[in-house]
Amino acid sequence: MAETVTICEVGPRDGLQIAKGRMATPVKMRWIAAMAAAGLPQIEVGSFVSPKLIPQMADTPEIVRRAVLLPDVTVVALAPNLRGAQAAYEAGAHRISVPISVTMGHSRANLNRTPDEQIAEIGRMVAWLRTQERRVELEIALSTAFGCSFDGVVPLADVVRVAEGVAATGADAITLADTVGYGNPADIRAKVRAVRAAIGPVLHGLHLHDTMGLGLANALAGLEEGIRKFDSALAGLGGCPFAPGASGNIVTEDLVFLLESQGFATGVDLDKLLQARAILREGLPGEALHGQVARAGVPKTYRVAA
Amino acid sequence: MAETVTICEVGPRDGLQIAKGRMATPVKMRWIAAMAAAGLPQIEVGSFVSPKLIPQMADTPEIVRRAVLLPDVTVVALAPNLRGAQAAYEAGAHRISVPISVTMGHSRANLNRTPDEQIAEIGRMVAWLRTQERRVELEIALSTAFGCSFDGVVPLADVVRVAEGVAATGADAITLADTVGYGNPADIRAKVRAVRAAIGPVLHGLHLHDTMGLGLANALAGLEEGIRKFDSALAGLGGCPFAPGASGNIVTEDLVFLLESQGFATGVDLDKLLQARAILREGLPGEALHGQVARAGVPKTYRVAA
Repeated sequence: MAETVTICEVGPRDGLQIAKGRMATPVKMRWIAAMAAAGLPQIEVGSFVSPKLIPQMADTPEIVRRAVLLPDVTVVALAPNLRGAQAAYEAGAHRISVPISVTMGHSRANLNRTPDEQIAEIGRMVAWLRTQERRVELEIALSTAFGCSFDGVVPLADVVRVAEGVAATGADAITLADTVGYGNPADIRAKVRAVRAAIGPVLHGLHLHDTMGLGLANALAGLEEGIRKFDSALAGLGGCPFAPGASGNIVTEDLVFLLESQGFATGVDLDKLLQARAILREGLPGEALHGQVARAGVPKTYRVAA
Repeated sequence: MAETVTICEVGPRDGLQIAKGRMATPVKMRWIAAMAAAGLPQIEVGSFVSPKLIPQMADTPEIVRRAVLLPDVTVVALAPNLRGAQAAYEAGAHRISVPISVTMGHSRANLNRTPDEQIAEIGRMVAWLRTQERRVELEIALSTAFGCSFDGVVPLADVVRVAEGVAATGADAITLADTVGYGNPADIRAKVRAVRAAIGPVLHGLHLHDTMGLGLANALAGLEEGIRKFDSALAGLGGCPFAPGASGNIVTEDLVFLLESQGFATGVDLDKLLQARAILREGLPGEALHGQVARAGVPKTYRVAA
């Protein structure tokens, strides 16, 4: 039987947060439901941040409360701090993702906090969640692990140091994030190996952007290094506020095609997933939708891994 | 010192041949010269086919005669048969590429000939070239090696059989071509290994399309299997007449970024190469230009392999 790879769809969070338009809540909810129905096992549906900073995420509490009623999907919410994690928990999120930057430049710009200060905050989130009735896992995303638009090349030792600090808090899982999309397969391999050597199976996933066109080559490198969880966004939505002109996350539809072609089961019905693009188009009429499988159509050679 | 990977730019042939517009000869020549000046070591500049079938290639004899005067670039011309190869030789081409289809469906549609008939024709080309004064290498491209829009999945044994037949003619080099872009990394690896086991180092290159978004992931797989020559097209020009909506060849600019990032020397000046897009835009104002590096800009972390 085919081994499973878990895709976490981050379009409703990482995609919408920098979209020029704002998707109406009912359309967003239909979009999320359609992706869940297509078989995506995890969806990051929003972010518990100040609506003043990111107005597109203002409806996150409502979205989470409704999304957790959908069958068979793990509802993930981003929270940058303890207060956000508490709000995510109260809304019913199944899983909470927390960003921490490896580089000082990105950390200051994105979180207004040093990496060490964020490690301490993650420690407080872990401690608080342990006192709660419901078990909610905390997944920490190490931003700028493969390059930074402020600080340039990111040394491997810095990534390992932050990963060790995060792992020591007792957080459940760590994702290495190529936030600005500067990564390449050799760097992915080297850092996955080094971080795994340092913290073991707490290293869980990769979050990749396709800024330079290497997104799926980087995913392949990660897959071959044993990574079994990837973030991606329908239609490659998103981008990066710190990399003008950059395209967004790797394209979920193309990632499914890659993984199934490589013999890994994703649980995703590719035709249904492609249909969910229509709702995205309806909700964000002005946004560029990416994706090669959508342009070319699913070829007759495509087979789901079994 | 970094190992070299050779890029053969096929935009002026594989790209222009299916473009809706027709690029004027002087612009085409300036475009080719700019790409040569950017350091591309090989350029496939045209095709010796009937101008009635492909009018965009009608100026190929003139283009070849002028391109061979450029310094430091190997001028490649496509020829489907002996008559074409003789014309390419007379025009001064440094190297001749010849297509053969692995699948019967594509062979009939593209060459109006069976694979075995084309192997016999290649044998006549090899024999004729051996009687000539100038040494001109013959590189055979095995079309539809990784999938066919007519015949679907292409068995590994068929690829090996055609490769063995071609190698037996004494042709200098063989490229495996993912003509319609249905390939995936696992299939690339398996077929590169099997063909190399059968014919050894005559297996030379990969010709990849980005139809499903896997182009650079497939290139990475080939690179890791020891392939050191790749075809690509500036701005991902092209497409496939038998895969509507498909995008074209893998993007030369993004391929350079991948290869240099992996520590391989391409000899290409990426900034100069990106500037050559302006001439392409001038010559084909209606065509969609692809490429992520061009959209995002070369990041500050980029270093040429040394």
